[in-house]
Amino acid sequence: MVDYFNSRIFLNPNEIPKEWVNILPDLPSPMTPLLNPMDGKPAPFEMACAVFPKECVLQEVSQEPNIPIPNEIREIFAKTYRPTPLHRALGLERSLGIEGDDIQIFYKNESVSPTGSHKPNTAIAQAYYAKKQGLQELVTETGAGQWGSGLSFGCSQFDLKCIVYMVRASFLQKPGRKILMRSFNAEVHASPSRFTDSGKIFYEKNPDHPGSLGLAISEAVEHSLRSDKARYSLGSVVNFVLLHQTIVGQEAKIQLKKGGIQTPDMIIGCMGGGSNFGGLMLPFARDKINGITPDIDIIGVEPRACPSVCKGIYRWDFGDTAKRAPIAKMHTLGHTFIPSPIHAGGLRYHGIAPIISILHNNNILRAVMHHQTEVIEAGIKFANAEGIIPAPECAHAVKETIDQALKAKEANEKKVILFNFSGHGFFDLLAYKEFMTGNLIDYELPTDEIQKALNSSEMPNIDESQF
Amino acid sequence: MVDYFNSRIFLNPNEIPKEWVNILPDLPSPMTPLLNPMDGKPAPFEMACAVFPKECVLQEVSQEPNIPIPNEIREIFAKTYRPTPLHRALGLERSLGIEGDDIQIFYKNESVSPTGSHKPNTAIAQAYYAKKQGLQELVTETGAGQWGSGLSFGCSQFDLKCIVYMVRASFLQKPGRKILMRSFNAEVHASPSRFTDSGKIFYEKNPDHPGSLGLAISEAVEHSLRSDKARYSLGSVVNFVLLHQTIVGQEAKIQLKKGGIQTPDMIIGCMGGGSNFGGLMLPFARDKINGITPDIDIIGVEPRACPSVCKGIYRWDFGDTAKRAPIAKMHTLGHTFIPSPIHAGGLRYHGIAPIISILHNNNILRAVMHHQTEVIEAGIKFANAEGIIPAPECAHAVKETIDQALKAKEANEKKVILFNFSGHGFFDLLAYKEFMTGNLIDYELPTDEIQKALNSSEMPNIDESQF
Repeated sequence: MVDYFNSRIFLNPNEIPKEWVNILPDLPSPMTPLLNPMDGKPAPFEMACAVFPKECVLQEVSQEPNIPIPNEIREIFAKTYRPTPLHRALGLERSLGIEGDDIQIFYKNESVSPTGSHKPNTAIAQAYYAKKQGLQELVTETGAGQWGSGLSFGCSQFDLKCIVYMVRASFLQKPGRKILMRSFNAEVHASPSRFTDSGKIFYEKNPDHPGSLGLAISEAVEHSLRSDKARYSLGSVVNFVLLHQTIVGQEAKIQLKKGGIQTPDMIIGCMGGGSNFGGLMLPFARDKINGITPDIDIIGVEPRACPSVCKGIYRWDFGDTAKRAPIAKMHTLGHTFIPSPIHAGGLRYHGIAPIISILHNNNILRAVMHHQTEVIEAGIKFANAEGIIPAPECAHAVKETIDQALKAKEANEKKVILFNFSGHGFFDLLAYKEFMTGNLIDYELPTDEIQKALNSSEMPNIDESQF
Repeated sequence: MVDYFNSRIFLNPNEIPKEWVNILPDLPSPMTPLLNPMDGKPAPFEMACAVFPKECVLQEVSQEPNIPIPNEIREIFAKTYRPTPLHRALGLERSLGIEGDDIQIFYKNESVSPTGSHKPNTAIAQAYYAKKQGLQELVTETGAGQWGSGLSFGCSQFDLKCIVYMVRASFLQKPGRKILMRSFNAEVHASPSRFTDSGKIFYEKNPDHPGSLGLAISEAVEHSLRSDKARYSLGSVVNFVLLHQTIVGQEAKIQLKKGGIQTPDMIIGCMGGGSNFGGLMLPFARDKINGITPDIDIIGVEPRACPSVCKGIYRWDFGDTAKRAPIAKMHTLGHTFIPSPIHAGGLRYHGIAPIISILHNNNILRAVMHHQTEVIEAGIKFANAEGIIPAPECAHAVKETIDQALKAKEANEKKVILFNFSGHGFFDLLAYKEFMTGNLIDYELPTDEIQKALNSSEMPNIDESQF
């Protein structure tokens, strides 16, 4: 029976999980290290600590299966937006012609955070550790602005200075995100800028240079190294970020149980760097690895314009175009690959979190891909049924969820699907406008173009016997 | 002691109130009727029913102190966003140097609704009554777009068609709101349009005519009268809208008690047409009228550029510029008054809800006013302290709250302040940008200009002996 009064499952703030789930000790094949981009060797502890807050460096390689969440971090969560609700998507089910409880769709609603996505989950943690260490600044880069605004908010909660290098093309096209960051007192620079050596070379040749994420990373890293009171901050890909995001999956687990679901049959999330998908699925993936829920189907959704896992190769590559970020072993389309300008800016990354790659190699999860028109069409269906308009990134997960639900309906199967509603689309409505006016374009990535990108990327040759 | 884990007070969906609070039977002086703009006489029941859904017409004049909320409406609330949280503003208190529990600030967070404000509270109710009556369309006007998007969402939940006439200036300047409405399948027209006689006159002379709220009202009313399956919908001012909004104050009452507060000392809200302020304060105002809480201080906040209550006069006036909306007895600056272009578009109304006027005349509430620069400055302070960026309208309430809290601190008084956080500012970030770049302008309204507006408004002469 349809029961709207129990269709959103809440937790009390004191039920915020007290530990993060660290998947590293349970990985079916060993974790690969991050390497120094200068010499291709594992970065010594001290060197890593010059870049990131010390506690994050420790967490990056920790083998503890559970890592305590400091109470000060849980307090900020409790004060602002966590626990987030878990919704039974009764409106969406009805709009798909699904009745009864044979097929059940749930989504974890991370869009209720102050900046509208899951990003503050790690921003708050990183800001806390930086403050505790006596640091005064965190520096980062941002493309579309989700991560930059997340970190700006996180820093504002601990009276830390936040400096964001924002890709100039976005800086000009997305004024909303920029103003939001500045409202949280962040310092936002269009990249390339004249404030760093890395940026100046490009800025002086062309002050209107549109920039790239790779360049913005270079500027942020350089800026952070200038002061011993500053550190660099990352919003995805690395282990400690995925660790911080596991709060999402842990809450979902408790909430599903409250809703009478022992375990979902299927978990879906969109994949850019892999942090929202990792956050939701890792606590469930651990159970799958350990044989507790061997049959759970875990699906990451990529855009067809940037299918790192679906069409990339698994190898060592630089984390950024400018070869200043660490080298990681991951599925990659090559660090010089420039994805087509799809609206899901957060999914335009040439690589993926090494954790996701390893789980994919071991068949713990699988990857699929969709075109942006079908994705935005799914987003509109969702908005009408559930009342919340998804970000283009998040709409990738919505699209796959709808497909899977209809497939199960067709096959008369019972199925509980859980997906991550990673963010709302209030700052991305242009994608919806283009769809409604028939101007949204799809970009398919031909196999030979991928090969070309991979060939031209001059990927590093790493001697794995060294570690 | 600061306890972040209990700083947001939640209710379960089954605690959504089951009745609305109808203030009419408790008003200290009798309610004034709405009059037909054509002849200045009270509109007959049948005529009113040709304009609004029948149930709303009945509610407009009901003398029942409590009106049941149909379960179908409560279900949509439960499925989507209600009950909304009540926050203890611990971050804001700390940023004001307030410690301990002598001064406590609470805010009811209506920004968590799918369109970011309190507007869906009445949109869902009106859509439900329209559907139940067998209607197929609701037609409305919108200025900045908060109400239009609220009603679009409400209609999408009941598979009703929604038609919105949006003031062309906003239509062009605020594409986000327009796309949001269309994502909820609403039909949105720039006003003046070529689709109505009222619009055509202006459109044909100048297709780029910037429009006005008065004109958009005229178009919406005309459009709605074309089909007996369509009705007109209003987002503020009238009694039934304020009635629907009392769910806000009722939830807040229960939540305060859960937080150990018997009654607040002060209630604050911003006032445009009066619906968010009315929604929060009316359940408390009834207790004040009935001597249960005689000392509670109820404060409505207006912009200095449009101070209907603070500087207007109390008399009969048209609800709109074009004299097509009903005549009401209210505080007014004159129906031809065009407020300066402040960012708080929702507060740019020449009049106010008659209920608010009557309560003001009887000293149940008072009104204050602020400039937009001090208001946006308060909004930034709030964003940094609490993590949520207020809409410019809502920032008026924030400003007054901060002033009152600091006054109490100065005077060493104990005080519990409750205010309505009526909406977030994600679609209004330009106001913040202008403030940060020093380009935000204040508009004071000189008394002689008010007099001029009042004189030129040709306000109707009503013979009150007729009713």
